[in-house]
Amino acid sequence: MIINKAEILCVGTEILIGDIVNTNAAWLSRELCFMGISQYHQAVIGDNSDRLSHTVETTLDNCELLVITGGLGPTYDDITKETVARIIGKELVYSKELYDEIHRFFRHKGKKMTENNRKQAYYIDGASVLKNDIGTAPGMLCRFEYKGSEKIIVLLPGPPEEMKHMWSNYAKPEIERHTSKVFVTRNINIVRMGESEVAQKLDSLMRRSTNPTVAPYCKTAETRLRVTASAETKEEAQRICDDMVEHIKTTEVGDYIYGTDTEIPVAVVELLIAKKLKIATAESCTGGLLAKMITDVAGASSVFEGGMVSYSNSIKYKALGVSPSILDKYGPYDHRVAAQMAEGAKRIIDADIGVGITGIAGPNGGTEDKPVGTVYIAVYYNGKSKVTKFKFGRKLSRERIRELAAINALIMVMEVIKKAGAGPHR
Amino acid sequence: MIINKAEILCVGTEILIGDIVNTNAAWLSRELCFMGISQYHQAVIGDNSDRLSHTVETTLDNCELLVITGGLGPTYDDITKETVARIIGKELVYSKELYDEIHRFFRHKGKKMTENNRKQAYYIDGASVLKNDIGTAPGMLCRFEYKGSEKIIVLLPGPPEEMKHMWSNYAKPEIERHTSKVFVTRNINIVRMGESEVAQKLDSLMRRSTNPTVAPYCKTAETRLRVTASAETKEEAQRICDDMVEHIKTTEVGDYIYGTDTEIPVAVVELLIAKKLKIATAESCTGGLLAKMITDVAGASSVFEGGMVSYSNSIKYKALGVSPSILDKYGPYDHRVAAQMAEGAKRIIDADIGVGITGIAGPNGGTEDKPVGTVYIAVYYNGKSKVTKFKFGRKLSRERIRELAAINALIMVMEVIKKAGAGPHR
Repeated sequence: MIINKAEILCVGTEILIGDIVNTNAAWLSRELCFMGISQYHQAVIGDNSDRLSHTVETTLDNCELLVITGGLGPTYDDITKETVARIIGKELVYSKELYDEIHRFFRHKGKKMTENNRKQAYYIDGASVLKNDIGTAPGMLCRFEYKGSEKIIVLLPGPPEEMKHMWSNYAKPEIERHTSKVFVTRNINIVRMGESEVAQKLDSLMRRSTNPTVAPYCKTAETRLRVTASAETKEEAQRICDDMVEHIKTTEVGDYIYGTDTEIPVAVVELLIAKKLKIATAESCTGGLLAKMITDVAGASSVFEGGMVSYSNSIKYKALGVSPSILDKYGPYDHRVAAQMAEGAKRIIDADIGVGITGIAGPNGGTEDKPVGTVYIAVYYNGKSKVTKFKFGRKLSRERIRELAAINALIMVMEVIKKAGAGPHR
Repeated sequence: MIINKAEILCVGTEILIGDIVNTNAAWLSRELCFMGISQYHQAVIGDNSDRLSHTVETTLDNCELLVITGGLGPTYDDITKETVARIIGKELVYSKELYDEIHRFFRHKGKKMTENNRKQAYYIDGASVLKNDIGTAPGMLCRFEYKGSEKIIVLLPGPPEEMKHMWSNYAKPEIERHTSKVFVTRNINIVRMGESEVAQKLDSLMRRSTNPTVAPYCKTAETRLRVTASAETKEEAQRICDDMVEHIKTTEVGDYIYGTDTEIPVAVVELLIAKKLKIATAESCTGGLLAKMITDVAGASSVFEGGMVSYSNSIKYKALGVSPSILDKYGPYDHRVAAQMAEGAKRIIDADIGVGITGIAGPNGGTEDKPVGTVYIAVYYNGKSKVTKFKFGRKLSRERIRELAAINALIMVMEVIKKAGAGPHR
């Protein structure tokens, strides 16, 4: 059997009422995409057996593979496996082995196993059980005939870490045996040129490209071009993609490309490593987010020794040496303060580059002159600071202003490093 | 007309292939939920006119309100309004006024308006245009008759900030005029008791509760109980909810409840404010995430003056005063190092409470003795440090280990503060 089309169905009232963001669907989508399995539709439904039945049945008409996440837990409103068993006409059977494993899981954690966990030791008769190495609810892979065609349903637990681990280790290897065409996607990363301008400049190229397809989309402070090719082999799809990526680099958009298949923090850390430069941070309104973004990158320790979160004026002065008279005269939201923070961070941490961020993330603290969203970012390198004043819209959320500030600081660092020579060998 | 049921449909190939996590659906779900509009199903589809048509038509059979996000942009693959216009039998009409507004938007940003943006100046004949104060694509609210019933379709742009602002300011006030029943939801926040144990303890209560309903779900390092009531007035629904929340506080679960309708960082900041205590952070493996979580809370500045990200040993020593002989003898992943970091942070920032985190977030750096996921967290208060060693599973991702470390540090702080008296008046 060949799987061409799949659907993802996420079960859980907590998603439907917005208590939880459905990151599972995004993650699984990427996985299916890379396996060359198309997906045209995705759904979320609540913990309701009738609606789940109806959705599963409708979905099975449109695809060979249905991946369901959620509803495998110990509580009475977890109804996924019961419902699927009924649809495919199978019983649930008890497994002593599964029970023992769940029991061991609790013992290992030093916790008491409550009796409702017993429910998780039942599986759909005939299904392959998928081990849960991280949690208690096992998954299942059911192969069956539906209206004369072969179908596969994969049941995965809702908690993202358990779901990902189970899919990668136990479900994916099985599904991979049923794929034919291979899709390869590459992303071109662009800064300082908006989506509509990119689209305008590449309009005719985008329209005439069918394999690979080329489509732009926005990410925070950057534009991405997604290039997707399909072929019978991975190598061939890869080659089609690569050719287009190389071609796009030669167009008007080329100068604005900072990388491919990367993220701004990763690109910055790689550039720092390549140039043997160390960076230090001093953050006020971003409150640690910039350092967090840098250290999200595994291996950041070779270019980042530390940073300061200087939230109050007194810490800006005491720990970073920002001049009290400047703080008094101009207040903390000022280009001179940002510059001295950047220099202070560089000096204290003994790095090559210092970054200083100060501004108003809101919701309070804005004035007519300096409304919420006003942020000063300084990058200190080679004896001088480059400071930029940003006016992120005052209607943006605190979270968004902080994110934009941290990302724009990284973009500024990227531009400074690109112009810089190699740093001292340490 | 009364809107009882709604569906949310998110359009965009970038969601379907997993490039973007669908946060819009979660956010809108909450909004609908609070308005007493039920939602049983949610969908995502790609930028394809036929499939969009088919999904919109099927959906309209099941609900009175359809909220569509995405596909309103300037590029040729943005097809939402064209498709909806066709389904409801209307033309797209050009608006000079919209064009001028888009033009002004670009001028204000100091950017050139590319010609493809002209597409965004077209709207569906007869629709109410919803202003976009943050971006360029206007939204629309269409009232029409479909198979003999009144329906409303709201079209919102895909970028979350634009979508939220437009919904809150221009769409929601209109939709609110068409609601009857009101739903109120409250969340009870629980730590140190897992979902299955909570479910076991409240099993009979959960089963017999229909209004309000009571359902548990997991969040990072906590369990939540969602209590949802419906009534004709908000006050009545609120009362039903509140009564249940108060009742649950008197059950066996009560001792584990740290708050209602809150988040761990918010609860910690509020506790610190209430007890007039200041906190300082020293982070190694979390690299600023803890400070970021604290400063996510608006108003954190009254309890948080700053923190240190001490990623390298040398900064742990130079900036925080961690003993070099301890670092030499035991390495950086050690309970003594965590304790000295906590104490150092408290001292340097002149706070009441210091938090130190050191450990191995992975993917590299683990040993047999101290595998990836080993994290030491110290909370220093009143002359002594409480240190806990955590073993977050070695199979968890770097991101997840960092998140669990930061959240668990906050839980430890919460427990220390609860036992503490009031701090010095500053």
